[in-house]
Amino acid sequence: MATAAVLSIGTELTRGELVNSNATWLADALTNAGFAVIELISVPDHAAHIGSLLGRIGREYDVAVCTGGLGPTTDDITTACVARVLGVELERDEASLSAIRARFERFGRTMAASNEKQADFPRGATVLPNPKGTAPGFSVQIGRALSFFLPGVPREMTAMFEASVAPAIAGLVSDAQRQIILRTHGLSESQVNDRLAGIEADHGVTLGYRATFPVIEVKVQARDLDADSAERRARAAADVVRERLGPRIVFGEGDAAFAEALGKALRERGQRVACAESCTGGLLGELLTERGGASGFFAGSIVAYENRVKTELLGVPSELLESEGAVSRSVARAMAEGALRRLGVDLALSITGIAGPSGGTAEKPVGLVHYAAATEAGTTDKHFVFAGERDQIRLLAAFAAIALGLRVVQDGHPGPDSR
Amino acid sequence: MATAAVLSIGTELTRGELVNSNATWLADALTNAGFAVIELISVPDHAAHIGSLLGRIGREYDVAVCTGGLGPTTDDITTACVARVLGVELERDEASLSAIRARFERFGRTMAASNEKQADFPRGATVLPNPKGTAPGFSVQIGRALSFFLPGVPREMTAMFEASVAPAIAGLVSDAQRQIILRTHGLSESQVNDRLAGIEADHGVTLGYRATFPVIEVKVQARDLDADSAERRARAAADVVRERLGPRIVFGEGDAAFAEALGKALRERGQRVACAESCTGGLLGELLTERGGASGFFAGSIVAYENRVKTELLGVPSELLESEGAVSRSVARAMAEGALRRLGVDLALSITGIAGPSGGTAEKPVGLVHYAAATEAGTTDKHFVFAGERDQIRLLAAFAAIALGLRVVQDGHPGPDSR
Repeated sequence: MATAAVLSIGTELTRGELVNSNATWLADALTNAGFAVIELISVPDHAAHIGSLLGRIGREYDVAVCTGGLGPTTDDITTACVARVLGVELERDEASLSAIRARFERFGRTMAASNEKQADFPRGATVLPNPKGTAPGFSVQIGRALSFFLPGVPREMTAMFEASVAPAIAGLVSDAQRQIILRTHGLSESQVNDRLAGIEADHGVTLGYRATFPVIEVKVQARDLDADSAERRARAAADVVRERLGPRIVFGEGDAAFAEALGKALRERGQRVACAESCTGGLLGELLTERGGASGFFAGSIVAYENRVKTELLGVPSELLESEGAVSRSVARAMAEGALRRLGVDLALSITGIAGPSGGTAEKPVGLVHYAAATEAGTTDKHFVFAGERDQIRLLAAFAAIALGLRVVQDGHPGPDSR
Repeated sequence: MATAAVLSIGTELTRGELVNSNATWLADALTNAGFAVIELISVPDHAAHIGSLLGRIGREYDVAVCTGGLGPTTDDITTACVARVLGVELERDEASLSAIRARFERFGRTMAASNEKQADFPRGATVLPNPKGTAPGFSVQIGRALSFFLPGVPREMTAMFEASVAPAIAGLVSDAQRQIILRTHGLSESQVNDRLAGIEADHGVTLGYRATFPVIEVKVQARDLDADSAERRARAAADVVRERLGPRIVFGEGDAAFAEALGKALRERGQRVACAESCTGGLLGELLTERGGASGFFAGSIVAYENRVKTELLGVPSELLESEGAVSRSVARAMAEGALRRLGVDLALSITGIAGPSGGTAEKPVGLVHYAAATEAGTTDKHFVFAGERDQIRLLAAFAAIALGLRVVQDGHPGPDSR
């Protein structure tokens, strides 16, 4: 398999002043083009570090794509470093110089003397035009690696990759690859991993895991001689993953949001949902409206952070708040039932809990959350002590309430003993 | 100057599936600790690549900090690779195993068999406890490099760096440095940069910028012979930054949340806030309750996504909704005034807008948001067409409403001509 490396040059990266989204974009593009990307590396604008990096890359990889250090200022030294590694002179490209000058004139400005060096390239390099900015790029062969040098400005870099790099490297890969991402909720990464044991060997695929709290993604990656075969292989393995984990755990593919499954179930039934939130402060409604089209199933929420608001807007009896406390099974049920009535919906979800960091007691610790789902047919409640920081507890509580809502919409309320 | 490298292990990085914010965080932390960070490198979960990387790092740097590959799944192989490079066996640490098992039990779950290997370490390693998660880290000497291995989960990694790595490497650098982070909202990065021109030269500090949408952080970094001198130098420059940008722009230091300034202003006055939200779905209330202690100033919200809810729960006249449309100045004002009355608070904030991706028209494009702040003394409204994706528009709208609320609490409503 053809290998690739992504190089990023700039002291702002190694000082931690800028997240390197260029490297991620290039890694994704090269992976999709069929390359095994073996390293992403950032080094500062220092000649010695750039030089030793280029030498190493030329020994180890088939393709290298490098961004940064092509600008006009004194710390932009990438081109000079490449010439030194290759042992060739820099040569001015008059066509590029005219293009740079014309670009400045088009915007009513005069080219600064420092821009002239952006038309200098190592002798023998192929110049890559920059349709969206000043600095052209170039490609050269360094040892084994066909190497591309692009500016660090993201929109210039991506346009040049697609126009000049992608066509130049297409011939270097032979097989095709396909990836299916399954998004899961409800099991830990290790539980998911345990349940999927053996699938890699049985189906000739690679399984990868990625946690984007509180979602665990399972990535099913297949490689084959052509795209259709890779697709079939990935799909067959993904079907087994879905079967092993079940539909409660796998809630979608690709970039599906967790709340979309509930939204879809509601829309299919012509139903609408509302929320009654306390400790989540509005997060539950926010998740339900995260994607466009939420007006097809979401009516609104009453966020009753104060007890007074629980009573006045949700009709929770103040005696109940006093006798059971705001974080209790009865209050969660009364909140959901209040929202069902007040907002006139088919399903109401409620959350009341102790998100912390303070406010916990021995009996009701930080993380304790009561939540409920009410419909015309009845109310189901649950509770759990969620682990983590305040933001995690709130997110886990909102996800749990959505999961409960989905179950009630799909299966109705469980019997009295099956909480 | 002592040198450092940041290593990131994970195929999700080299496949371009995840932007590597860990590496940027560590580069920033190591730079602030006084190290010259010479490379940031990401490699996939492959033994050969990890092994050759560790060998090279041990020859080239004084300190290496590595994240990722300490999880329970089969693709987590960092620990085994370190043992192989050092030529030592893996040894199970019973104390760590008990801690992992206890952590599972505390949350009412049983430890999976695959978690056991998270208690295995190269013989001779120093175990680094993980107060926020399952996987402990460890440190070992690899060649010249004092090397630290941390989990890839950002909150666990940052906590362990501060607790275990920072103290261990502090002795390797000679001069002292101090950093003050000022958090700003309301100007672009280049506007902030322009306003702060000259401060670096005048005060002998370095200014860094970091965008965490929609907040721009200004990092004032000072280096001096001892900690007190560095502190004084950083503080003097930070004062100038505050003066140049003004108190509306600089809302806090360190990890201050934007809503905290409003919470503080309300608490100081013994006042309470409520919200009336439409397109933000609950985000405004969520931001106001993001940090603990929100019950000191936050009463609740009415999220009126449907027009019917705007009328029934907020008292927005249905004629107004028909004649002006839900996204209009009058409806934003009526929503805020409705929340003020219904929730009986001192300040009510409202948001109604078109977050997209669909729903825009030529007259009311995607991104148009009307928002208002109502008090007993009156109502002030504003509107803006925010740029970006749905999530960005919602976040910008919520920040704008909070900023308006802060202004009204501090200065009252502007005159009729000063909208």
